[in-house]
Amino acid sequence: MTTQAGHTEAIAASRVIGTSVYNTEGTKIGSIEDVMLDKLSNGIMFAVIGFGGFLGMGEKYHAIPWASLDYDEDRGGYVVPFSKDQLKAAPAYSINELTGADGKAARDASYNYYKVEPYWH
Amino acid sequence: MTTQAGHTEAIAASRVIGTSVYNTEGTKIGSIEDVMLDKLSNGIMFAVIGFGGFLGMGEKYHAIPWASLDYDEDRGGYVVPFSKDQLKAAPAYSINELTGADGKAARDASYNYYKVEPYWH
Repeated sequence: MTTQAGHTEAIAASRVIGTSVYNTEGTKIGSIEDVMLDKLSNGIMFAVIGFGGFLGMGEKYHAIPWASLDYDEDRGGYVVPFSKDQLKAAPAYSINELTGADGKAARDASYNYYKVEPYWH
Repeated sequence: MTTQAGHTEAIAASRVIGTSVYNTEGTKIGSIEDVMLDKLSNGIMFAVIGFGGFLGMGEKYHAIPWASLDYDEDRGGYVVPFSKDQLKAAPAYSINELTGADGKAARDASYNYYKVEPYWH
């Protein structure tokens, strides 16, 4: 797994925010709007992806497990191992809904939908 | 432990960045400039604190363990359980040095200096 150029592991949140995200078909699906942090567990809950008008969902955002983002230096953005159809059908939230139930509602639904192993126990 | 108003656990990185940080004497010591994220472990490595001219260190930044930041709603900022003298003598880094050795140099020195239990194993 590789990340932002020159860094294999540490990446500043301010550099992550604004980075483009591509799906497995190589189509740009949106950008990282924010990263949700877990105050109590020291874990990164999920990346908040905004899809703009691409999926026709207006102001809705997706929670994507941090571990699903793979930095592609050639594209200059993250690639997620999900298809356009998968992303289209994924749970989407308003910004306020993302932090509902301490962020666990969006987090749990996201990890479940994308079948990513939870980082919490 | 409490965090940003209304959230007990989930907090967006963009809301953390720019927040003031106070020491145990109630003095504002600086602001959160960034949050360093660990791509591989899904962990939050540390908060990057800029002290401006306050400690007379120019462009140097401190790595503070995420778990050491306690949000104080009355002050509208984070309080760290460290004195002015402790912070003054703490390891400080340029922005580039913070990501050296995958961020582990600054991270390990910080957790060691502030005697915070590592989140990694």
